[in-house]
Amino acid sequence: MHYFLSDYKLISKVTEHNRIMKLCYQPICKWWYKFLVLILCQHQLSCLPQIPSSVAANKRNVLLIVGDDAGFESQVYGNQVLKTPALNYLANRSVIFDNAYTSVSSCSPSRSAILSGLPQHQNGMYGLHNTVHNFNSFEGLKSLPFLLHESGIRTGIIGKKHVGPEDVYPFDYEITEEQVSINQAGRNITFIKERISDFFNGTAVDQQFFLYIAFHDPHRCGSTNPEFGEFCEKFGNGQPGMGHIPDWTPTHYTPDEVIVPYFIPDTPAARLDIAAQYTTIGRMDQGIGLVLEKLKEVGHLDDTLIIFTSDNGIPFPNGRTNLYASGMSEPFLLSSPEGSSQWGQRNSELVSLLDIVPTVLDWYGLHYPSYKLQGNVVQLTGQSLLPLVSGHERYKSLRFEPLSDDSLNRDAIFASHDLHEITMFYPMRSVHTQDYHLIHNLNFKMPFSIDQDFFLSPTFQDMLNRTREGLPLLWFKTLNQYYYRDEWELYDLGSDPHEVHNMVNNATYSSILSALKKQLKSWQNITADPWICAPGAVLEFQGKYKGNPQCLSMENGLTDDLTVHKTLEISFDKRQQYAVEVIISTFHHPSISFFMGVELLRLLICLAFLLLFTNLHKRWKQKSFHKEYTI
Amino acid sequence: MHYFLSDYKLISKVTEHNRIMKLCYQPICKWWYKFLVLILCQHQLSCLPQIPSSVAANKRNVLLIVGDDAGFESQVYGNQVLKTPALNYLANRSVIFDNAYTSVSSCSPSRSAILSGLPQHQNGMYGLHNTVHNFNSFEGLKSLPFLLHESGIRTGIIGKKHVGPEDVYPFDYEITEEQVSINQAGRNITFIKERISDFFNGTAVDQQFFLYIAFHDPHRCGSTNPEFGEFCEKFGNGQPGMGHIPDWTPTHYTPDEVIVPYFIPDTPAARLDIAAQYTTIGRMDQGIGLVLEKLKEVGHLDDTLIIFTSDNGIPFPNGRTNLYASGMSEPFLLSSPEGSSQWGQRNSELVSLLDIVPTVLDWYGLHYPSYKLQGNVVQLTGQSLLPLVSGHERYKSLRFEPLSDDSLNRDAIFASHDLHEITMFYPMRSVHTQDYHLIHNLNFKMPFSIDQDFFLSPTFQDMLNRTREGLPLLWFKTLNQYYYRDEWELYDLGSDPHEVHNMVNNATYSSILSALKKQLKSWQNITADPWICAPGAVLEFQGKYKGNPQCLSMENGLTDDLTVHKTLEISFDKRQQYAVEVIISTFHHPSISFFMGVELLRLLICLAFLLLFTNLHKRWKQKSFHKEYTI
Repeated sequence: MHYFLSDYKLISKVTEHNRIMKLCYQPICKWWYKFLVLILCQHQLSCLPQIPSSVAANKRNVLLIVGDDAGFESQVYGNQVLKTPALNYLANRSVIFDNAYTSVSSCSPSRSAILSGLPQHQNGMYGLHNTVHNFNSFEGLKSLPFLLHESGIRTGIIGKKHVGPEDVYPFDYEITEEQVSINQAGRNITFIKERISDFFNGTAVDQQFFLYIAFHDPHRCGSTNPEFGEFCEKFGNGQPGMGHIPDWTPTHYTPDEVIVPYFIPDTPAARLDIAAQYTTIGRMDQGIGLVLEKLKEVGHLDDTLIIFTSDNGIPFPNGRTNLYASGMSEPFLLSSPEGSSQWGQRNSELVSLLDIVPTVLDWYGLHYPSYKLQGNVVQLTGQSLLPLVSGHERYKSLRFEPLSDDSLNRDAIFASHDLHEITMFYPMRSVHTQDYHLIHNLNFKMPFSIDQDFFLSPTFQDMLNRTREGLPLLWFKTLNQYYYRDEWELYDLGSDPHEVHNMVNNATYSSILSALKKQLKSWQNITADPWICAPGAVLEFQGKYKGNPQCLSMENGLTDDLTVHKTLEISFDKRQQYAVEVIISTFHHPSISFFMGVELLRLLICLAFLLLFTNLHKRWKQKSFHKEYTI
Repeated sequence: MHYFLSDYKLISKVTEHNRIMKLCYQPICKWWYKFLVLILCQHQLSCLPQIPSSVAANKRNVLLIVGDDAGFESQVYGNQVLKTPALNYLANRSVIFDNAYTSVSSCSPSRSAILSGLPQHQNGMYGLHNTVHNFNSFEGLKSLPFLLHESGIRTGIIGKKHVGPEDVYPFDYEITEEQVSINQAGRNITFIKERISDFFNGTAVDQQFFLYIAFHDPHRCGSTNPEFGEFCEKFGNGQPGMGHIPDWTPTHYTPDEVIVPYFIPDTPAARLDIAAQYTTIGRMDQGIGLVLEKLKEVGHLDDTLIIFTSDNGIPFPNGRTNLYASGMSEPFLLSSPEGSSQWGQRNSELVSLLDIVPTVLDWYGLHYPSYKLQGNVVQLTGQSLLPLVSGHERYKSLRFEPLSDDSLNRDAIFASHDLHEITMFYPMRSVHTQDYHLIHNLNFKMPFSIDQDFFLSPTFQDMLNRTREGLPLLWFKTLNQYYYRDEWELYDLGSDPHEVHNMVNNATYSSILSALKKQLKSWQNITADPWICAPGAVLEFQGKYKGNPQCLSMENGLTDDLTVHKTLEISFDKRQQYAVEVIISTFHHPSISFFMGVELLRLLICLAFLLLFTNLHKRWKQKSFHKEYTI
């Protein structure tokens, strides 16, 4: 049986169990005292449910595989042209999520969110980490690799890191663009295979691990290494000057046969791009095959939770750097050794990449710590997905939704983008339900920005040329529409899955719009979003506004209905109130309130005994060994 | 006699002299060899001019004093109400610059530029360093404290640091907001005085020093510590709860008597603000008095170059965070012990705070190193101001102006702002000559942003209230004009010193506009500005554009006359070509070409001798001591 309370600072029984176990076997006291504690512990253990799984708590491992701009191009997600046998194999051991979304469609911000569980505006990685962009997460952030290392789990990363600073994202084993070239670390699947061997060779037999394989495939490389092709599809293919990756058998596709997604113009240029991308996805797929083989070889296939996803959408128009579904949807395979009954099933629940940290912590039975970042209490807004792959229904109220309207599907996920390259300031916030998608464009009067990599792509160059020459774009938008967006965009996903009809001024949707805005603002509040008052107001939270933060209008003509009242109370303290509400509502939940009551009673009795014995022991120790311990 | 060539990688004789001196006295070789070198060195020294100053090269020190949002409010700059006796005293030992400008009107960016000599877009500090803003300069940047430490000069900072990372801005002695509260480090002048004693107690008698006193006065504190008053004017004044600064005798001013600058509304609210600011400036002034007394006490008043300036303009509308003259003009006193004949004189040459690094290096006789940052050759665009305070005319062509038009005054300074708070994205670039000021607003379609500190000021709150209530602002603009700016702003400073009449569409100024745009773009190019192509185009410099960077149009409707041609060549390599041109033109300069030729000839002869002896020595060493040195 699983416990679903690891978030929101509720005590997870699995975690409590682990702590007691540690208490039992650690030399915290003299041998004669151990005996008493052991008796208590045995009693305590009987208070707690045994871990109900086939994998012991101290044997659990994680393999996180992340593609780079990978998108849905795979057989698993319905592409019958592109062959991805390794992903097929993994999907057959996984629950396949059809509604998974990143929290931001940009590399470093997304990877920081994946590894911290906090959206980019909360973790500080507002844009790209590398070169002149120079963004970093906040010092003091407790990331997943940091927490796992603290818990004695060996951590490793092979491939593209793209986050920093070093002390916030430390790995015990690290082969990334910081040590070797990004193409070696992220595309040379033979090199990657060998580094995985190194990692396992350095891992003690009884040591738990977290291994993060961050492929650089299928990222474009036309703007940096055009000699290897637009998607580095020639890199290591054995042709003259291309090098040779022994473990890779390239597959080739013709432009005619590729499947053009709805958000890409169906042009010869785009088809050529997609065909090259397929070849590169094929390399990643074969790489994933090698990773899984290696995992099997070292005997960890059946005690390792495997996650496959991508940092953001594919690098095509309306894709990467956008908060549209075409830029945000991610492949998401979650393979739990304990959930074999669910393997191969599809799941349509809304899933966020912010759920990865809670899921991994839940798998290891670890707590997310209580601490502050930039003066604000840090609280994960993702949740563990383990119930979904173990045949359990997710405990819905754990998804953050304090202000959601009953007319909405109660489940929602959120996204937040600020910059990509340092010059590309285009902050957006978004809330996504099963039925609706609301986007807030904060810098909406300026044109949407284009990154250096995508700009040079044959697909986009062709679009620019067609625009200049007045030729049909063969696209579902014009370039001008793409550049200049409304401040608010609301899409009815049921009737408009491609998000082209903005319903924000349609009176029919006014109550939905209002509810979604409240929900979004509430998430911005809980995640301490510096942009919570933008673009019409200034956030004040210091001095006389300490403990009572306010959005105060700048009178710049951009004040919307949420910020027009200068006294709008957007209190960061409300999260505390909500946390308490969640705890209370949890106890009121019919299915667990009785069980919780009984368990709590037993726990209290156990603790009372422990306290009593500790006290007696202390007194006796003071009496008998006083001199011995005096220094 | 001074040498003006320390920038642009030309060999400064002073520096060359120092190097030879080091060669003479360092144990680079065996004793018997020293003898030969010494003979050579003596000869070499006779080749070089002796340092022509009253202060020996190895005795030179620097005291850099920076106010926080200090502006012109002082007697030195014509304010006859506000009494600033210490600044008066310093001014009487200084050249007083009337045309000094910061390179950016924002705290961390400006301080990073002061300490690195590179504009914020080149050093990476695109906005504030503290809390959620989280900006940092690039790793690998060689800042002034870094270079001085490397040269054995003891460095100290007392007050507001506000830049990072630590390893880029290291100080041997450091008491800043990172160690104690910012008010203690930056406003408690008794505390500051004592820390200066600590610094000097830790400095060896014969050790050179660079001491940076960074007052937090007269910064506002109404938004963070309103209990101390709007400008912390009550902090330490001895009133109940205010604490007591023993060395401070507060001076008070009435709102009636203050002088309201042209860019501030003449309202009761603003006058109250200004009166409070005067009191705080008074504390800084008394602090400066203590610093100078301490300097005299330790016997360094006559061997220390003293600079007083401020990071940016005063925190009032049109002031701080703006690139208008009201936000950019800085007080600038430069006191050289060698220039007593110039003391008390006023100088109207254009001076940039980017000139501080070259000036300090020149004073110490040090080179700026040759290195790359983010793949680009780093080149200072400021220049030493020492000639101006020693009665020499500045060698004009050393000011960067490769593309300037003959119709313009040849001297120009540049400015560059990107963000202040992380949410305040409003990049601007500016070129300023004696006659004209051109500003490029890159995010011009969005309103200009307001910071949390200034927003809460009584002056601005009053402006907001007046706007809401339809009352006259008593200002030279409307709020709407202030928020919404043209993409380009051109002001004719002769007829319009308050910069209110934008001449950008006036045909009379078209050739001036064009020349200034070229000059600005050229500076952006030399300083490797990531925004060089914004907002209409994308900068491409990798892959097939390596060595041939291009601005390529996004076709977003914002392409201006400089970027409309997709093949515009904005080559980062041009700087090399320019450097060569400067060297050649320097040799052609009539006043020094003959002297240089003779000196070079003598230098070459010296070097030939040195080479010959070294070679002979090496051969002899190989012959005689071969076994001894074989390992």
